[in-house]
Amino acid sequence: MKSGQGHSLAIIAGGGVMPLEVARLAQRCGWNVHIAGISGFADTRIEHFSHVWVKLGELGKLYRQLEAWQCRTLVIVGAVIRPQFGDIGFDLGALSSLPDIAKLLRGGDDSVLDGVVRFFEGRGYEVLGPLDVAPQLAAEAGAMTANEPSGDTLADIRQGAELLRVMSPFDIGQAVVMASGRAIAVEALEGTDAMLERAAALRASGRWRVKGRCGVLVKLAKRGQNLRVDLPAIGPRTIELARAAALEGIAVGAGQVLVAERERTLAEAAKAGLFLYGIDP
Amino acid sequence: MKSGQGHSLAIIAGGGVMPLEVARLAQRCGWNVHIAGISGFADTRIEHFSHVWVKLGELGKLYRQLEAWQCRTLVIVGAVIRPQFGDIGFDLGALSSLPDIAKLLRGGDDSVLDGVVRFFEGRGYEVLGPLDVAPQLAAEAGAMTANEPSGDTLADIRQGAELLRVMSPFDIGQAVVMASGRAIAVEALEGTDAMLERAAALRASGRWRVKGRCGVLVKLAKRGQNLRVDLPAIGPRTIELARAAALEGIAVGAGQVLVAERERTLAEAAKAGLFLYGIDP
Repeated sequence: MKSGQGHSLAIIAGGGVMPLEVARLAQRCGWNVHIAGISGFADTRIEHFSHVWVKLGELGKLYRQLEAWQCRTLVIVGAVIRPQFGDIGFDLGALSSLPDIAKLLRGGDDSVLDGVVRFFEGRGYEVLGPLDVAPQLAAEAGAMTANEPSGDTLADIRQGAELLRVMSPFDIGQAVVMASGRAIAVEALEGTDAMLERAAALRASGRWRVKGRCGVLVKLAKRGQNLRVDLPAIGPRTIELARAAALEGIAVGAGQVLVAERERTLAEAAKAGLFLYGIDP
Repeated sequence: MKSGQGHSLAIIAGGGVMPLEVARLAQRCGWNVHIAGISGFADTRIEHFSHVWVKLGELGKLYRQLEAWQCRTLVIVGAVIRPQFGDIGFDLGALSSLPDIAKLLRGGDDSVLDGVVRFFEGRGYEVLGPLDVAPQLAAEAGAMTANEPSGDTLADIRQGAELLRVMSPFDIGQAVVMASGRAIAVEALEGTDAMLERAAALRASGRWRVKGRCGVLVKLAKRGQNLRVDLPAIGPRTIELARAAALEGIAVGAGQVLVAERERTLAEAAKAGLFLYGIDP
């Protein structure tokens, strides 16, 4: 964690509420927060902060604004659907950056995100992760709910975490549903939500035959995952899907998995009788 | 492989065409083949062979018939939906076996299959696998189609096989879809067909963004998988689903993955322009 101490921080904001949460918590940590909201993606509530709207491709405008804010430190957060190069309206100030941008749009998903960080670093900016400026966003170790995993479930959590670790060198292994020593579903490209929907469907179809609450979602950062731009996260939707799959709870890497909308997420977990548990990584 | 040399072999037949294929090929290998078809599951074409119909639970009838056939060697093949204990109509001859049966119905899927083998072994039978009596059923090493994997695709196949190997100790890791160095989908409880449907859906939704034929299904036996009762298999349906996902082809463990309805499977792979490739395990 970096303490703000009145330093300027620019949040480059994509979609969702995360940029707003990061902004609020970073302010509490003493940062002088500004937000550059990406038009068409960022929540309009960024306007409650010092802000500017930039279109994808308006790099000249962004660079000028960062200079006006005297800001050399960035956090990039929020969803942006990867655009096609030809769909981006570049401004004059973006011209010198076009070759780099074309290159980074060609790679896989992970390499785009890594590329964005390298892009700004190459221009002299310091790029921090959301957890660097707002560590309160991450799960803490141990039970975050009144419910706790049983001994058997702790064994499933350990086994799931180990499975994720061995898959990690293959650039997958972010999440898995474990139950009674078995892997019910393993996440690859589909994402955590779709994997949880699959677990629910496997129960509904009788392929996963079990009565009552059973199973746990285990979610960790991949080894070497760039937590500055690609933070594993859970939130109210994760709770809803875990409840629909009749899981017992959710275990996430402490200090590395972001709990979005924490108050609401914890309240809904409690209401659904799910545990939320931080694994000491 | 065991040569038949006129010895008696009883095939305990569940659903599907596999029991018929095993019967035909085992005959060619010199076995004196009998089939005990499980009522409600086995294909009626077992009646072209020396056969008996037994209901689940008619163990007394089965034991007597095996004795009449002078048959101490079994192959168990074909699908049987795991029944509830209370739904099985046991005959008198099954009474002494009930505690064992109750125990094996309580376990997970794998342990049921292992349990069935141990059950018959405990009664003095030798239980062989389909590949022991009909090795022609398995994939051979190298390209089985005119199409062959490219160099890049061979790298994906190697990486997929390695991923399956590291997952194997967790009792998963039977199949994976790889493309351009990435794992697109990993099979757990849902089975290979459902995983291939997911790969197709990921393409259709644009989450897996790629043009033209891309990706390969890699399927291997799990380490320690009991190939006597739980044989990984591909067949015409696998080809159909791989085609629907616009994959380039399918790679399977040579000598360990069964190619069901081989002629039809190879013909449909050729028609779809897919390669079928055996990995030297």
